Amino acid sequence: MTDSMTARIPPQHGRGFMLRRGQILRVIDPEGEQVADLFAFAAGDPGWLSSGRSIDYAGKIFLTIGDVLYSDDSRPMFTIVADTAGRHDFLLTPCSQEMFEILYRHEGHHPSCWENLQLAFEPFGIDGRRIGTTFNIFMNVAVDPAGEVIVGVPSSKAGDHIDLVAEMDMVVALTACSAENSNNGSFKPIDYLVLDG
Amino acid sequence: MTDSMTARIPPQHGRGFMLRRGQILRVIDPEGEQVADLFAFAAGDPGWLSSGRSIDYAGKIFLTIGDVLYSDDSRPMFTIVADTAGRHDFLLTPCSQEMFEILYRHEGHHPSCWENLQLAFEPFGIDGRRIGTTFNIFMNVAVDPAGEVIVGVPSSKAGDHIDLVAEMDMVVALTACSAENSNNGSFKPIDYLVLDG
Repeated sequence: MTDSMTARIPPQHGRGFMLRRGQILRVIDPEGEQVADLFAFAAGDPGWLSSGRSIDYAGKIFLTIGDVLYSDDSRPMFTIVADTAGRHDFLLTPCSQEMFEILYRHEGHHPSCWENLQLAFEPFGIDGRRIGTTFNIFMNVAVDPAGEVIVGVPSSKAGDHIDLVAEMDMVVALTACSAENSNNGSFKPIDYLVLDG
Repeated sequence: MTDSMTARIPPQHGRGFMLRRGQILRVIDPEGEQVADLFAFAAGDPGWLSSGRSIDYAGKIFLTIGDVLYSDDSRPMFTIVADTAGRHDFLLTPCSQEMFEILYRHEGHHPSCWENLQLAFEPFGIDGRRIGTTFNIFMNVAVDPAGEVIVGVPSSKAGDHIDLVAEMDMVVALTACSAENSNNGSFKPIDYLVLDG
């Protein structure tokens, strides 16, 4: 592959695209410590990416090489085949305007993954209110034994990537996350690449 | 309140009902060690119960007295005001036919919460494919430091209950869970009661 094949999502933006079964989606953190929220819908049927199903089948909350991301109706959507970062989150919903207001008392518009994902799905005729818990690539979320959720600095370094094989035809949306607290205080781009399997 | 006000959900069944803002939903485990899956949609708008938002705002995965269950668009749906069991799950999706086949190699039809919730929402004109991660009342799911998910025996004893105040008008569905592994091997009823606040 060459750099010319790589698409860049600017900081605090999102992109939507089709993925055909067998293609590989590579998501790259070009500068390090930057989260990318991923969501997907089956092409042409009601299936959508389900955190709860995926965690249930994996028997764990941290998914990496060899693990499968499932749809709500239990079909494989993605298989992770490469992962140089090793830590991603599948518990939390995309940051949203309301989240910045509730958790951080932000005033005025704040770019958010929820808005960016909704905008990214819109040209494909997909209602953004169907977006559920996202697969938050490079996001570092720990759960302590008492159940407390701790959002840490992403462990991803510049150039780290994850490769996901598409197990069905899908519409996918991906962001460069807009939340200060998830990205060690700065907003960076996310790169991605679709490779034919 | 009297026993005559209590509705009983038979083992491996579900029920759907309206809940008005201010009413209290009491869910009771009459025999002990029985899970009840709960899901809800806002009445008259696209809002739905969101595990990811609720966990994010609570900062923890185990919700109990004082905690709020949020919609996907960050509005409070329920506040927990009483909880004699103390442990519930908000990570896993309702058991489904496919889950029994994938995890337990079950052959033939198996009653499931996913089917029962879909049937329960149907009379209200709600598409069951919009059901996300359920609030799994009395379900005992632990996460170890490595992220492994362990489904244990429910800690609820006969008569344990949880009270949830409705923070908006909603359509709610509730089950007596159908999964052997979540209910210590036997299927029991679930009782519920709607109290005017």
